[in-house]
Amino acid sequence: MGYTDTDKLAINTIRVLAADATAHANSGHPGAPMGMAPVAHVLFNKVMRFNPKNPKWLNRDRFVLSNGHACMLQYALLHLYGYALSIDDLKAFRSVDSITPGHPEAHDTPGIEVTTGPLGQGISNAVGLAIAQAHTAAVFNKPGFDVVDNYTYAFLGDGCLMEGVSSEACSLAGHLQLGNLIAVWDDNQITIDGDTNQAFTEDVLKRYESYGWQVLTVGDGENDLDGIEAAIKAAQAVKDKPTLIKLTTIIGYGSKLQGTHSVHGSPLKADDIKQLKEKFGFNPEQSFVVPQEVYDLCHSASAKGAAAEEEWNQLFAKYSEQYKAEAADLVRRQTGDLPEGWEKSLPVYTPADPAVASRKLSEIVLNKVYAAIPELIGGSADLTGSNLTRWKGAIDFQPPATGLGDYSGRYIRFGVREHGMGAIMNGMSAYGTLLPYAGTFLNFVSYAAGSVRLSSLSQVRNIWVATHDSIGLGEDGPTHQPIETLAHFRALPNMMVWRPADGNETSAAYYVALTSKHTPSILALSRQNLPQLEGSTIEKGIKGGYVLHEQEGADVTLVSTGSEVCICIDAVKELAEKHNIKARVVSIPCFEVFDAQPKDYRLSVLPDGIPSLSVEVMTTMGWERYTHEQFGLNRFGASGAYKDVYKKFEFTPEGIAKRAVATVNFWKDVPNIRSPINRAFQQLI
Amino acid sequence: MGYTDTDKLAINTIRVLAADATAHANSGHPGAPMGMAPVAHVLFNKVMRFNPKNPKWLNRDRFVLSNGHACMLQYALLHLYGYALSIDDLKAFRSVDSITPGHPEAHDTPGIEVTTGPLGQGISNAVGLAIAQAHTAAVFNKPGFDVVDNYTYAFLGDGCLMEGVSSEACSLAGHLQLGNLIAVWDDNQITIDGDTNQAFTEDVLKRYESYGWQVLTVGDGENDLDGIEAAIKAAQAVKDKPTLIKLTTIIGYGSKLQGTHSVHGSPLKADDIKQLKEKFGFNPEQSFVVPQEVYDLCHSASAKGAAAEEEWNQLFAKYSEQYKAEAADLVRRQTGDLPEGWEKSLPVYTPADPAVASRKLSEIVLNKVYAAIPELIGGSADLTGSNLTRWKGAIDFQPPATGLGDYSGRYIRFGVREHGMGAIMNGMSAYGTLLPYAGTFLNFVSYAAGSVRLSSLSQVRNIWVATHDSIGLGEDGPTHQPIETLAHFRALPNMMVWRPADGNETSAAYYVALTSKHTPSILALSRQNLPQLEGSTIEKGIKGGYVLHEQEGADVTLVSTGSEVCICIDAVKELAEKHNIKARVVSIPCFEVFDAQPKDYRLSVLPDGIPSLSVEVMTTMGWERYTHEQFGLNRFGASGAYKDVYKKFEFTPEGIAKRAVATVNFWKDVPNIRSPINRAFQQLI
Repeated sequence: MGYTDTDKLAINTIRVLAADATAHANSGHPGAPMGMAPVAHVLFNKVMRFNPKNPKWLNRDRFVLSNGHACMLQYALLHLYGYALSIDDLKAFRSVDSITPGHPEAHDTPGIEVTTGPLGQGISNAVGLAIAQAHTAAVFNKPGFDVVDNYTYAFLGDGCLMEGVSSEACSLAGHLQLGNLIAVWDDNQITIDGDTNQAFTEDVLKRYESYGWQVLTVGDGENDLDGIEAAIKAAQAVKDKPTLIKLTTIIGYGSKLQGTHSVHGSPLKADDIKQLKEKFGFNPEQSFVVPQEVYDLCHSASAKGAAAEEEWNQLFAKYSEQYKAEAADLVRRQTGDLPEGWEKSLPVYTPADPAVASRKLSEIVLNKVYAAIPELIGGSADLTGSNLTRWKGAIDFQPPATGLGDYSGRYIRFGVREHGMGAIMNGMSAYGTLLPYAGTFLNFVSYAAGSVRLSSLSQVRNIWVATHDSIGLGEDGPTHQPIETLAHFRALPNMMVWRPADGNETSAAYYVALTSKHTPSILALSRQNLPQLEGSTIEKGIKGGYVLHEQEGADVTLVSTGSEVCICIDAVKELAEKHNIKARVVSIPCFEVFDAQPKDYRLSVLPDGIPSLSVEVMTTMGWERYTHEQFGLNRFGASGAYKDVYKKFEFTPEGIAKRAVATVNFWKDVPNIRSPINRAFQQLI
Repeated sequence: MGYTDTDKLAINTIRVLAADATAHANSGHPGAPMGMAPVAHVLFNKVMRFNPKNPKWLNRDRFVLSNGHACMLQYALLHLYGYALSIDDLKAFRSVDSITPGHPEAHDTPGIEVTTGPLGQGISNAVGLAIAQAHTAAVFNKPGFDVVDNYTYAFLGDGCLMEGVSSEACSLAGHLQLGNLIAVWDDNQITIDGDTNQAFTEDVLKRYESYGWQVLTVGDGENDLDGIEAAIKAAQAVKDKPTLIKLTTIIGYGSKLQGTHSVHGSPLKADDIKQLKEKFGFNPEQSFVVPQEVYDLCHSASAKGAAAEEEWNQLFAKYSEQYKAEAADLVRRQTGDLPEGWEKSLPVYTPADPAVASRKLSEIVLNKVYAAIPELIGGSADLTGSNLTRWKGAIDFQPPATGLGDYSGRYIRFGVREHGMGAIMNGMSAYGTLLPYAGTFLNFVSYAAGSVRLSSLSQVRNIWVATHDSIGLGEDGPTHQPIETLAHFRALPNMMVWRPADGNETSAAYYVALTSKHTPSILALSRQNLPQLEGSTIEKGIKGGYVLHEQEGADVTLVSTGSEVCICIDAVKELAEKHNIKARVVSIPCFEVFDAQPKDYRLSVLPDGIPSLSVEVMTTMGWERYTHEQFGLNRFGASGAYKDVYKKFEFTPEGIAKRAVATVNFWKDVPNIRSPINRAFQQLI
């Protein structure tokens, strides 16, 4: 406490920088940065522990701007506190190839923990960061050695509170009693459409109380700096509940239009900026000015953070002596590398092994590797027995008080909350010490599309165990049978969608998913049993696509994934015996990975001179990239025993053979058939 | 009140039918039907007003089974009360082509209002049904003529409560003070993973109170029939709040495993069914038996419903005399036909008209047609000023008590709740008197993927006004710029994704979207201005694809959508002047509609003998179906002024020309180039 005029000047500097940058960009959101500048100052200057010279220090407090459109607030802070973000970067706000894009992007900008902007995601990421902290602390802290004891702070606006993803994540956060999570709600009573009373009249604090949160209020978020600090301290003091602080602010504080939705998403006009600067004692003729005493104040807080890290380094050095293995493990985890030799645990299959559903194959992998990969932590959206995501003897991640597990547990009961689960995984990945996975039916990964997209954009590693991946789930019917889902996520940049055909391919999928540090994965897994294929190996599988069954002088290539590959193998016999047609079979369990192989290799898999037919029980969309003809399902499925459903839609050896014959006939007069791998030009990447 | 042994027998009949059907199918969920049989009986037998002989009677009470996996409960009820659903249909539960699929599907089964199963959707649909009732009543009811005064009842389980979509919809329902909505929460303390205390320990009633709902409890949901009925009556009595009744039940009531998660999703074993039947006085040797007195009891309730409809018919006949126009309008609305001549209101453009953003063109359409189509009702997820979804002078749909509008208002402030908005639209469409639309950024339609999918599956008509449709939104950056979104929804069966290039195409998109009774639409609309194109007409546009610019002896076809079409037109000049290449231009604003055209027509648009190049600033996935080469964006976008972003990714006349030249060169040695329209075989539909 004991705030001075320099604190006020620092707060007003943030406001003026936000006004300057949005005006300079002629785009952006000045309102929330101006309204939230005081709480941001208190948090960064008096409370949070961080070192701008090492934004990746493990035990830093995490800050998440869930209302990501207010990013000029965060960019201004990063600049003031000495992160590698210059005044020129602020001037480049919202311009191409800057590190100050329209919404915060974690992979580009030092000091940004998670990519936010799509509303509701950041606060849900924060729940994931808090889970990761609690787990890491439970695993690594020792008496006298609190090597991990950071807090996670999040700012959020009304929009974040309205989004269902945050409801899911915050309900779970309450259940999990995450006392290390402190959220500040920017209660400015304004949304884009105007006053919040148009659509948002619920009692937010009561709702968060119902989730099991502590709730606090600060009535004057623009001036009551002591009150803000006291609230944050009170939040820290409660160890078994997350806290939501309702902070009443005035959007666009200082603007002539303060308190109206006009300052939400449009730059202030020139005369407004002029009066703003005059009011706050800035020279209205100058822009992007930071008074030296403000730099000094901020840098001195940063210096405290640097000293804290130094102190922590000493603590960790002692810890390393006493707990050598743990320390080495913690260091290794932060590199993203897995423990040496872990891959020896991956199961390998031969055709003599029994037919097994790939969801079960996934369970076998988890049971084999969990001990070798201690950072692996996962769960399910209340489908554990269906997704088979829990290894034998796993301990649940639960507050000890529940008697159901403890924070060192590596199995998370997410509840029926797919979107929250996805956003929580993104936060857990971002923490730096964990490798999260989560299960649901493939069809319901779509519920989490918003968070899945952000995992790709922010380049985090996590894994969706997406079982019941097709009409092969049978009786549950069209409401649960994916048709468009694989196309959707295959079209998402930096996302690996795997659909393994057998045990070796499942191991391959896990191998690549677990070792790709900057790419998330979706593993589409069958409910029904699949035979172990002749010709599949992990080595071939990790190329994303390969020739499973070669044939000299083949007339057609059958190209397939997952549960249809074995039917294609049967179709080969059918074609040979009944139609005198020679077919080869290609398996492409992952487009994204196959696309990354050298062209020569891809052409060897899908060569010129022979027509190809894809076979997959989903939309054909996307398959035209790899094959000349496509057999798929451009309609919804049906409820029934899976064999009946496959039969209804002719996904049988006979049905495939029929279309292979049509393919051969259709292409037989075309000279020099060109593989679709050949393209006129390269795509931009 | 005054429940008899026959009531108990009817309840037990439901339980036994649920056990029989799931056992017979060897699949399904007996637990919830057995636990909820009492409340279902009270509701259907003593409370609800419906006529099984006319399941579409306008003023029927609506029933939604949000926990759709419990559908054997609903199928049993439909059978018992005399809907067109026989004992044989129950025996065909979960078998291919039955009308009793694994989850309830509205388009297939008489008496099913909305398609449920994906959790959280049904209760959100129910909010939409309640909104539709409130609006229809406000518009059509007259003193002495309550032609629309039905209630909407919904059953939901813990899973529905955990899903964010229901949080969004129920928060809005509280704000909207929907007293006509009554939900019964099956509080059985069990989810698939086991006890709800593993993940779901929030205070649900407190949460619903925070939303502004009335909350009631019934402690013994298996036996206290009077208490159940009293709670429903108490819910009806409160006119300005929706009600949530917490009904404590025992999952799988009557089974040896009652109260455990073992009865949730697996049929009961034979010996368990035997003891169940014995306990309830049924012959354990017989299956699918309904005692005659149960039929009698149920049919007598149905007869009351039929009489109620008859009474209503008389009321409506009088109403029709006194309010001729209103009555005719109400009758017409239920056919799905629009008022005659409405299409004359659609704006038509010539190249002389100024360049306008297609989001603005959409606003112009809404302003022109709203008076002609009184069932059109829409809103936005708090982006009204960006989506331009509000016609001039629109009245907000608000509870009169707020002073912000009234229930006759046709503009809905959905708040930042995209998923809830989508599910609410589905419910509104299902009511039968409304044609809903809703706005958000295209990128955030993905938040609603779960409900969008169900709109397609359940064949309802509604419209997403999806603005800011590409990297053309500029400064907001990659977090907001769709890349995979069009591919995702184009891959969804029975979904029309439109991306109009100018004013006439925007009118065409609206024409088809508004007149397609059984297909939802997404209109992808630009933020940036687009010129009015030479050669576009509404008539061509409604074919989904057409030749915009023909050229004798063309070397290449440029195929594009939306904001890239005008750049292709400029590329034609560039190609002619700098490369001596003749290019024609095809616009395909909607794949789904173009695909439905006769093959001859499609081949005239994309003919043999000429290579084609698609141009769209998104993933190329899916374009391989129409073109030989693809220019797109298989990576995330960038934050910056839109022209800078287009330039960065070379979506300029020069960038297109460069790739057109590569296309021509790559294909020049191929004889008899085949149009991708030609296929070896037809897809199943």
